Amino acid sequence: MAQQFAIGVDYGTNSARALVVDIANGAEIAADVYDYRRGDAGVLLDSSDPNLARQSPADYIEGFLTAVAGAVAKARETAGFDPQRVVGIGVDTTGSTPIPVNAEGAALALLDEFKDDLAAQAWLWKDHTAHREAEEITRKARDGEYPYLAKCGGAYSSEWYWSKIAHCMRTAPHVARAAGAWVELADYVPAYVTGNFHPSKLARGICGAGHKAMYHEEWGGLPSAEFLESIEPGLSRFRFETKAVPSNHQAGLLCAEIAEQVGLPAGIPVAVGAFDAHMGAVGSGCGEGTLVKIMGTSTCDCMVAPLSKRLPDVPGLCGIVPESIIPGMYGLEAGQSAVGDIFNWFVKRLTPGEFGTGAEAHAKLTDAAAKLRPGESGLVALDWNNGNRTILTDPLLTGLLIGQTLHTTAPEVYRALVEATAFGALTIINRMEEYGVHVAEVIVCGGIAEKNPLVMQIYADVCKRPMKISRSGQTCALGAAIFGAVAAGAYQTVEAAQANMTGVKSTVYEPIAANVAVYSKLYGVYKTLHDAFGTTGFHGSLAGVMKELVAIRHDVRRGAK
Amino acid sequence: MAQQFAIGVDYGTNSARALVVDIANGAEIAADVYDYRRGDAGVLLDSSDPNLARQSPADYIEGFLTAVAGAVAKARETAGFDPQRVVGIGVDTTGSTPIPVNAEGAALALLDEFKDDLAAQAWLWKDHTAHREAEEITRKARDGEYPYLAKCGGAYSSEWYWSKIAHCMRTAPHVARAAGAWVELADYVPAYVTGNFHPSKLARGICGAGHKAMYHEEWGGLPSAEFLESIEPGLSRFRFETKAVPSNHQAGLLCAEIAEQVGLPAGIPVAVGAFDAHMGAVGSGCGEGTLVKIMGTSTCDCMVAPLSKRLPDVPGLCGIVPESIIPGMYGLEAGQSAVGDIFNWFVKRLTPGEFGTGAEAHAKLTDAAAKLRPGESGLVALDWNNGNRTILTDPLLTGLLIGQTLHTTAPEVYRALVEATAFGALTIINRMEEYGVHVAEVIVCGGIAEKNPLVMQIYADVCKRPMKISRSGQTCALGAAIFGAVAAGAYQTVEAAQANMTGVKSTVYEPIAANVAVYSKLYGVYKTLHDAFGTTGFHGSLAGVMKELVAIRHDVRRGAK
Repeated sequence: MAQQFAIGVDYGTNSARALVVDIANGAEIAADVYDYRRGDAGVLLDSSDPNLARQSPADYIEGFLTAVAGAVAKARETAGFDPQRVVGIGVDTTGSTPIPVNAEGAALALLDEFKDDLAAQAWLWKDHTAHREAEEITRKARDGEYPYLAKCGGAYSSEWYWSKIAHCMRTAPHVARAAGAWVELADYVPAYVTGNFHPSKLARGICGAGHKAMYHEEWGGLPSAEFLESIEPGLSRFRFETKAVPSNHQAGLLCAEIAEQVGLPAGIPVAVGAFDAHMGAVGSGCGEGTLVKIMGTSTCDCMVAPLSKRLPDVPGLCGIVPESIIPGMYGLEAGQSAVGDIFNWFVKRLTPGEFGTGAEAHAKLTDAAAKLRPGESGLVALDWNNGNRTILTDPLLTGLLIGQTLHTTAPEVYRALVEATAFGALTIINRMEEYGVHVAEVIVCGGIAEKNPLVMQIYADVCKRPMKISRSGQTCALGAAIFGAVAAGAYQTVEAAQANMTGVKSTVYEPIAANVAVYSKLYGVYKTLHDAFGTTGFHGSLAGVMKELVAIRHDVRRGAK
Repeated sequence: MAQQFAIGVDYGTNSARALVVDIANGAEIAADVYDYRRGDAGVLLDSSDPNLARQSPADYIEGFLTAVAGAVAKARETAGFDPQRVVGIGVDTTGSTPIPVNAEGAALALLDEFKDDLAAQAWLWKDHTAHREAEEITRKARDGEYPYLAKCGGAYSSEWYWSKIAHCMRTAPHVARAAGAWVELADYVPAYVTGNFHPSKLARGICGAGHKAMYHEEWGGLPSAEFLESIEPGLSRFRFETKAVPSNHQAGLLCAEIAEQVGLPAGIPVAVGAFDAHMGAVGSGCGEGTLVKIMGTSTCDCMVAPLSKRLPDVPGLCGIVPESIIPGMYGLEAGQSAVGDIFNWFVKRLTPGEFGTGAEAHAKLTDAAAKLRPGESGLVALDWNNGNRTILTDPLLTGLLIGQTLHTTAPEVYRALVEATAFGALTIINRMEEYGVHVAEVIVCGGIAEKNPLVMQIYADVCKRPMKISRSGQTCALGAAIFGAVAAGAYQTVEAAQANMTGVKSTVYEPIAANVAVYSKLYGVYKTLHDAFGTTGFHGSLAGVMKELVAIRHDVRRGAK
């Protein structure tokens, strides 16, 4: 049989990437990247408000045209590639990144009237201008005993769909009035390139709707008009009646105008879009029993469990949405608000000159930290420098370091911070297991996983599970390509596509028994601090905490002689 | 009346200093320093045991001869000085630094047989080889319901007299057998230079006996033979029957042989010795209502209260000994295990290269920290990197830092560490006041006080009291000279001598009301953490701690706009 290909298009915060993949084996034939041209590396800022982060939809459109065309052109240099053999296209994006469109589905920002209006642009995921609206939604949902927060960890975020729309209505009512709908970026791109952008025809992905817009079949889709009106009169106008669907569905077929510009035939099926982390999880090999951690400045943890399990609500998880990752499965999303960001903070702010700066400092600190044994420093940290996303869903929590003496060194603190993020990871795994989702192994993707064996070994030892590394370095785009292939019918299921198209590297980090034993004790200390500072239900004593760390330190050092 | 002079001789850890003082006004006429010649800057070490720290008595003798002769020679260059007008000599030393002597009072270490035997040397205050014996003494005193720990904070230390003697009996029995007595360095020097070194004639100072050997009139002097025998059979042989006396008593008169070598007439009264911090407190102006903090790598806090007050035992205070500082007054000793040491640790271990190193880094961090307002960083630390001496008397406690974000800077942490030591200082003051000892003002002496206005202002704001700086830079030697004058009868009382001979600098750090208000909130957080991690009686919730710091930070930053 002749080779067949799928194209994945991945929209990050600063660029769009297109990847051409051989659907028989996942071989990545060609890729191209478009760096957004507007604003500060693609982000439109407002110097008077550090919470504001917007993006121009023009960058999204140019991104598709440029990156896909570039990738296709490069693929043509590969024997066996032919644009006629591209069977499907998938799209993943950041989110929640809602875009106001007019009654016909055109982005307001692309109309002359609104082109310089920040409120009319895409509201990038990390825009936090709507924090008051988020608090209000959370409070009113709780006070009114609405069920809507049950699937998103009990708190609605300023980063999400309804917060942003309500904030726009309050602060830029002219934009809100002109809007006929608000469309997640993940839905906007497939709609645009298939021509199905009229709100009545536009496909809404379950990933965006379920994780960010409180959409759930349990309460018949979106939150009730009554509830939305209680937040802001008129907000219910932005409810959509469409049934949200997973990404094995087609958003439509590549329209002729776009196809011509990117060097593809018209009519290629385009999958319904989803968020980058979710498609990245699929591209990494996420499946029953296999948690995927996308580890960067923060982490996003994705997990699935069969719908037949009828999962209860899991307190503190960012989201539990049927079919948001893999059709037929619950999609579970968790996350750590800061991982690489904590290591970077320590390197930038508290690392002595002898270790150098930047990447050199990371390398030297890692080398020195690798020579330490678990427990030897007597330190434990909480990984909350940027709050806690899962399982405490509390952005106001802060960091903590305990156990320092007059001899504590920078590599010891660095290692304690790595360990803290690993303890945070275990806390998420434990929470999933407590609610019936078994986690047998972890696949990590992202730069840290590939570059830092120490981090991976610590995670294996702390989490007591093998840590594997995704084979692809472009798992989001690969995942999008998988959905392109599945939506096109080249594979019957996502799992079948994953079996052929994904894999892990040969290096697997297995837990080392001696380390597991020590980390088990240190995790006890972490969990005590976690509960004491992060929950209201803790009534134990902390009098023994420092002593226990000293005792562990003593045992480890004595054992080493 | 012709000028009169007293000489103070101050034995530190690495050197001995002699100071010639005009007793009419405290003017410091001449000084000379002898750096100890043996071991590592005077400290004899054992590479196989980091707890061991000994000193050669030969350095003490040479120290007296060299430094006093040097100071007298220099003083001769001053108009009005005449060795005949030296009315008295006082001596202060480190402690507890016990020295084994033979039945005639000769230091074993000066005998050929023992000259290379580490166990026969002076057991320097910071020798911790006897930690097991200290634990045993504490346990047996508690279990047997003996009263002996009541005046020393409830725990006996490895640094102290009986721990060290018992440890010597167990590990170097040949030395213990050869010893006829053990003599505190503070008693050894006056005995040696007056010729009154035979154990039957040797004067024992109340300062050393009361603070380190559990001597108290309430139980008739030293602990009972029965108790000491229960620690180690034979230990009671080292009880002395002499009544311990304060330093307004004479240990004897300068003997001719020594006098000749130092250029003084024989027969000058030599005061009974005491510890450096206690005489330093007197030299700084310690008195009723005035706490003296001797601030260096750690701090020693000295306070007095009239005997007529009949003070109860104060839990956690290192010592409460009648007349150990000023005759007629209780002497109260407290301390912080690490102050400058914590700042130095941070500079050495966790300060980025942009701030330089060493003194430059301290200066730059201080400058940057001085630009911050109280509460602005959202950080609070516990000052326990070297344990907590007062009021928790727990060497196994460790440091803690809370409130860090991804933006926390090195100057913010540095300031938090300074504030932590100030909170520790306030905790000591509060404990004294709770037990009836009023603290109206604080006089600080030591390098940090003179060099770092930021530290002083923070202490004033946190402690809500004026912070003054001792006028003299050599307060210990000055205090010793004061006792030399008093023991000689040149002044009737220590207070009268202090009135003429001590003073403070003109710069006084007054509390700033706005800072006091914020620090009062931050101290609440510190105290919560202090009680939660340092005591067994805490059953409150810590769930609000991080939020409170964020709220304080928010208020301060908003108020600044």
